[in-house]
Amino acid sequence: MATENRSATAETQIHDLVNGWAEAVRAGDIDARLANYAPDVLAFDVVNPLQRLGANAIRERLETWLASFQGPVGYELRDLRVAAADDIAFCHSLNHISGTLKAGDDIDMWVRTTVCFRMIGGRWLATHEHTSSPFDIETGKASVDLKP
Amino acid sequence: MATENRSATAETQIHDLVNGWAEAVRAGDIDARLANYAPDVLAFDVVNPLQRLGANAIRERLETWLASFQGPVGYELRDLRVAAADDIAFCHSLNHISGTLKAGDDIDMWVRTTVCFRMIGGRWLATHEHTSSPFDIETGKASVDLKP
Repeated sequence: MATENRSATAETQIHDLVNGWAEAVRAGDIDARLANYAPDVLAFDVVNPLQRLGANAIRERLETWLASFQGPVGYELRDLRVAAADDIAFCHSLNHISGTLKAGDDIDMWVRTTVCFRMIGGRWLATHEHTSSPFDIETGKASVDLKP
Repeated sequence: MATENRSATAETQIHDLVNGWAEAVRAGDIDARLANYAPDVLAFDVVNPLQRLGANAIRERLETWLASFQGPVGYELRDLRVAAADDIAFCHSLNHISGTLKAGDDIDMWVRTTVCFRMIGGRWLATHEHTSSPFDIETGKASVDLKP
């Protein structure tokens, strides 16, 4: 297969994979959301700590996060861009999170997400994930109310 | 050249490139720091707004940021990890920023950085950059005092 076709196929695979993750969040399906992580994935998350190492740390955080909502979580990707070669890929998007916390607060925020993949054992696995909000330099507060 | 050797060469190139960027920040050399950006790079920055599009927006932000310091800026990368294939690469690191603002405040903070590259016209160009601090879910404040 020509390099160009291989790249196009890989990009479609990553597209489908991250759209599948979003669907899994909406369905509250933790195992589906956690498919395709490398065991030693390094995550830079939107909230503390500075970094989380390993798929187990990501599972723990996801379980806590999903459990903090009453009812389903809205999760939509915008401006998803994917680049992929033979065995390396990355993607980034703006992700819209909505829902109501058990504590009562309504959540309606956009975060920025970048995910980096390697083809390992014939499967695309995320080795790195970076999700964040920027902060307001005047107040020092995370800007959770920005819209794209 | 075998694929493995090509990847090793590409990884070395990215290593050198981002270490060169750090050196350029320390030297206050804006042009050197801005080498190797794609014209349509999409940046998710540590402070507002949600995203910045284009190398010119990155230049403007860098100029403002460097001008906010009195004297040189300390900039060190830790835990730099690079993955590269033929024409796609990514890297991530924890970056330590230190110095004194003109406003008088001492800065001593760690940020998380992810950079994604494509080989374009025979050069590695960053098409995406994501730098952030996590925030504290209790206070809503960016956690600029975390250490790795």
